[in-house]
Amino acid sequence: MANVGVIMGSISDWETIKHTCEVLEELNIDYEKDVISAHRTPDEMFTYAKSARERGLKVIIAGAGGAAHLPGMVASQTTLPVIGVPVQSRTLNGLDSLLSIVQMPGGVPTATVAIGKAGATNAGILAAQILGAFDEGIEERLVNYRKKMQEKVKEMRDELARK
Amino acid sequence: MANVGVIMGSISDWETIKHTCEVLEELNIDYEKDVISAHRTPDEMFTYAKSARERGLKVIIAGAGGAAHLPGMVASQTTLPVIGVPVQSRTLNGLDSLLSIVQMPGGVPTATVAIGKAGATNAGILAAQILGAFDEGIEERLVNYRKKMQEKVKEMRDELARK
Amino acid sequence: MANVGVIMGSISDWETIKHTCEVLEELNIDYEKDVISAHRTPDEMFTYAKSARERGLKVIIAGAGGAAHLPGMVASQTTLPVIGVPVQSRTLNGLDSLLSIVQMPGGVPTATVAIGKAGATNAGILAAQILGAFDEGIEERLVNYRKKMQEKVKEMRDELARK
Amino acid sequence: MANVGVIMGSISDWETIKHTCEVLEELNIDYEKDVISAHRTPDEMFTYAKSARERGLKVIIAGAGGAAHLPGMVASQTTLPVIGVPVQSRTLNGLDSLLSIVQMPGGVPTATVAIGKAGATNAGILAAQILGAFDEGIEERLVNYRKKMQEKVKEMRDELARK
Amino acid sequence: MANVGVIMGSISDWETIKHTCEVLEELNIDYEKDVISAHRTPDEMFTYAKSARERGLKVIIAGAGGAAHLPGMVASQTTLPVIGVPVQSRTLNGLDSLLSIVQMPGGVPTATVAIGKAGATNAGILAAQILGAFDEGIEERLVNYRKKMQEKVKEMRDELARK
Amino acid sequence: MANVGVIMGSISDWETIKHTCEVLEELNIDYEKDVISAHRTPDEMFTYAKSARERGLKVIIAGAGGAAHLPGMVASQTTLPVIGVPVQSRTLNGLDSLLSIVQMPGGVPTATVAIGKAGATNAGILAAQILGAFDEGIEERLVNYRKKMQEKVKEMRDELARK
Amino acid sequence: MANVGVIMGSISDWETIKHTCEVLEELNIDYEKDVISAHRTPDEMFTYAKSARERGLKVIIAGAGGAAHLPGMVASQTTLPVIGVPVQSRTLNGLDSLLSIVQMPGGVPTATVAIGKAGATNAGILAAQILGAFDEGIEERLVNYRKKMQEKVKEMRDELARK
Amino acid sequence: MANVGVIMGSISDWETIKHTCEVLEELNIDYEKDVISAHRTPDEMFTYAKSARERGLKVIIAGAGGAAHLPGMVASQTTLPVIGVPVQSRTLNGLDSLLSIVQMPGGVPTATVAIGKAGATNAGILAAQILGAFDEGIEERLVNYRKKMQEKVKEMRDELARK
Repeated sequence: MANVGVIMGSISDWETIKHTCEVLEELNIDYEKDVISAHRTPDEMFTYAKSARERGLKVIIAGAGGAAHLPGMVASQTTLPVIGVPVQSRTLNGLDSLLSIVQMPGGVPTATVAIGKAGATNAGILAAQILGAFDEGIEERLVNYRKKMQEKVKEMRDELARK
Repeated sequence: MANVGVIMGSISDWETIKHTCEVLEELNIDYEKDVISAHRTPDEMFTYAKSARERGLKVIIAGAGGAAHLPGMVASQTTLPVIGVPVQSRTLNGLDSLLSIVQMPGGVPTATVAIGKAGATNAGILAAQILGAFDEGIEERLVNYRKKMQEKVKEMRDELARK
Repeated sequence: MANVGVIMGSISDWETIKHTCEVLEELNIDYEKDVISAHRTPDEMFTYAKSARERGLKVIIAGAGGAAHLPGMVASQTTLPVIGVPVQSRTLNGLDSLLSIVQMPGGVPTATVAIGKAGATNAGILAAQILGAFDEGIEERLVNYRKKMQEKVKEMRDELARK
Repeated sequence: MANVGVIMGSISDWETIKHTCEVLEELNIDYEKDVISAHRTPDEMFTYAKSARERGLKVIIAGAGGAAHLPGMVASQTTLPVIGVPVQSRTLNGLDSLLSIVQMPGGVPTATVAIGKAGATNAGILAAQILGAFDEGIEERLVNYRKKMQEKVKEMRDELARK
Repeated sequence: MANVGVIMGSISDWETIKHTCEVLEELNIDYEKDVISAHRTPDEMFTYAKSARERGLKVIIAGAGGAAHLPGMVASQTTLPVIGVPVQSRTLNGLDSLLSIVQMPGGVPTATVAIGKAGATNAGILAAQILGAFDEGIEERLVNYRKKMQEKVKEMRDELARK
Repeated sequence: MANVGVIMGSISDWETIKHTCEVLEELNIDYEKDVISAHRTPDEMFTYAKSARERGLKVIIAGAGGAAHLPGMVASQTTLPVIGVPVQSRTLNGLDSLLSIVQMPGGVPTATVAIGKAGATNAGILAAQILGAFDEGIEERLVNYRKKMQEKVKEMRDELARK
Repeated sequence: MANVGVIMGSISDWETIKHTCEVLEELNIDYEKDVISAHRTPDEMFTYAKSARERGLKVIIAGAGGAAHLPGMVASQTTLPVIGVPVQSRTLNGLDSLLSIVQMPGGVPTATVAIGKAGATNAGILAAQILGAFDEGIEERLVNYRKKMQEKVKEMRDELARK
Repeated sequence: MANVGVIMGSISDWETIKHTCEVLEELNIDYEKDVISAHRTPDEMFTYAKSARERGLKVIIAGAGGAAHLPGMVASQTTLPVIGVPVQSRTLNGLDSLLSIVQMPGGVPTATVAIGKAGATNAGILAAQILGAFDEGIEERLVNYRKKMQEKVKEMRDELARK
């Protein structure tokens, strides 16, 4: 059963959001993924959000660009934590996506991560951290993930030393 | 029966949106007004948007600030034209409100006006212009409104001449 | 007879504004299109704006970039609703276009849509929505257009499921 | 025992972060609060972050302004989820705070909320949502909190009706 | 006979543009001043611009805020140099005014100065410099104005030395 | 003898500033051009600025990018009008160039034009307009230049009609 | 004999730059202070910069706002390190000051600190750090200054504990 | 023994930071270089910063992008001057890097240079200038470097003259 629901506003966001799914798989987190559009399929969005908890989800990750309403609107219909990924927009580099997601009014938070690929990766890690706060197995995998990152920095140091 | 529905995300937006209502009254346009919050009362928002046309509305005006999802989400549930008024936010001067409202993805437009008081006034005039395109009486009142504006400029010229 | 007038400041804007015309054709809306430059042919612009209503237009769509004065200046000479499309500029990504179009002073509104292609498409849809508020045939076509959008989301969901 | 650790870079951030503590109290969440400065007390920050999990914390909330390094640096030393609150800065309205917190590189996420008071309130709610995903009592309190918000909107509607 | 025409979009701009007139008087330059609104009195604007040269003007100074079209539209109707003063706007601090004035397309320049009071003063000096390039009397007065500025810096140095 | 001095901070600015020279040639204005760097050759810059008037220049055009000090520093050493062209920078799209040039303090104006190619062209036209205010021959050429622009718009209209 | 030269473009910058002088005094660093305007007294600026090293200065601190050319232009005339303090401007909050100071072309660096009061304080500390890299007495005073900062954080923790 | 320590947050920053090393070599300054990540190897970062002075370093140069915490966090653990190089980020062009580095709170300065390549080069020159304030040999090399820059400008003038 999936613990994390990953949704995106359009298939064109997959280029970004696939990095979320990759890291969830690397951390061995059960997840489901879907295309849900706040503006084109608002009823499906509400059904998705309202049923999320009873379907067993613990965290929702929503990626969207431009006037990105998906994360905030999903958050308005569930008490689960919702992580918002600002997809880089063509015209304003994702500044519009970022502000549309992060600047939520008091009462309905979204947990916003960085614009684009880095944020997509971090959305997956953040979901794992939320689960890992209550699950030692996941926490261990996060610790190992960190160790791998540190080893990559070591490799970078060696690479730099050769330059 | 109201032709124009004016909604705002919070009573705190009234300070801005009252300028919309004032100009609608000055132009003798029937309107209704309400507080509908995208994030706190999403179900009411959808009910409002879905029933708007059959209740006789021709135009909806929605004011909101910050991650301002109200205009775009209402627009996703009706084929009526939706005018979005970016309310000036405390932290980013309404730039977040503007981008959250105007940068809608292809398929679901909002008709966005200026941030704050000027935009609120213009939302009312724009609604009247939409009605006036099909109603000569309203068009006449718009022409008169313009004439009054021109007279005010004349008064300004006199005032400046005395400085 | 055309109900919608589509104008642009330069032939170079066509790459953007063609998306407006495509959606107007898809929705079967009568329109005319022309190049009218606020700065290079101001007299033609005024003639165009002042005669628009009597020529039967109900809505004007004006696309322009940079210090984009075309939508606002046309709006100053007609009581018809004017939709402004901010064309993405080379240097500031269309932020200049957006602010020059949307930040109109109280009294003369423009109905501003998103920067670039999404906004151009939405300008056409918004014009159809304005006409559709008074025309059931157009309204039906808009409903169908929405349904097609929802079907595309379904196809996206299938496409994503295969990834 | 505290489940949520609330830290801020300076006592001057309390004016903002007190809204976090207020909502945590309203939701009956155990929390601790402290001043920890990334730049002035970096060693204390590392000790705090490294010991957080074993001290029983499930979530850390960190508020900071300007070049706001506290949330990201705490996140680099723990696998717990870290919520970052961008405090509104004097010179750039909190845009610097927001970007310094949200634009984390892939590998070390922060869960960023809105700039200023709204974000501070939402940080508390988000922490409760994370706990509530695993605790039905907290989830119930969140549902009630939402209901109160909806009642406040109803009161706003009544207030508006009288205007 | 006036050499410099000073116009502004609204009497509310006078608070800024009075600094233009003050420096023109200090430099003993003949000028005229008026309120001309691009959006509310477009016909008067065109009449003004088209007749400017034959009425003996050498330079036009136009101040406006928000979607500030006055300088660029006047420039489109005259071959005289047009200096644009971006008036500080309430919502976006004059960034909208600046971009609306300065980002003119190739073919129709405006000579843009700083936002607000400093720019208003500089518009007057720039007009005097344009006249002074062809008039030794004015050039002498500009040289004296500079000397006074340098003397003020000396006074500042004395004032600082006492701190 | 040259009436217009065209300078740029680096040979890499030529790609932009050549458009200034092209339009000056098209309008048959005598000009000289040179590379003068505010930061690398400050003494030459001062010599250039201080001798400009006695060498017969009436207008100086200075193009620079990034922290673009050339236009303002030249302006500080001459009473001639100085036109500043913000060259598009690699990192911030010329916003830094624009603000560094236009936001001059009261007392020392620069006449700023648009970022990049459009601004470079307009700098040449603006210089011609300044000269043309006192020279009927140049004024006639400017009128003809405008006519050609209008003819180009006509050609665009024909081109669009074929689409 | 002064090791640090503190200059500012106008006496109005003193409100900001006094924080530089206060911290220099607290750290017992010899300094001199003066008003030098890049635009109004360019010759004095060059004299100052060119003679700085032989007068015994090791570091120059220059504060300026708007199109802030003082730090970069001083840096172009000396090989001493120049610290630039962006003074908060009225219209653009110091973003113009920051970009005008920091975005220097390759070859002539400025060491830029934060906008406003924090940056002014930090300019003084940075100057002390530069001297302290070669002077153990100053380094000790910097270590003590840090300790005091840490003690202030402890007092803040106590203050917060009482809230 | 190295006088200058050059560190970067990731090997991907080398494309930018190599310009720092090139100029340090051209100026014959002893330096060391390494990859140190604030977020992935925070302990190594602290060890590096705390031991820097006793290892003989006089200046540290730190390059990082996005939420760039490396320069500020290193600065919090040493009294040596730390120069921060904002690496151009993919999504926001380095504006996030710049603000994260430069907007440090009072007490812990970073000496910030321009975004990207120009800033990287200038970081090396600035480090040399700091050393050169106390070392005549280095100062001479800086004077020669400046002369070469001036000769390059002369070559540019010749190149331009041929165009």
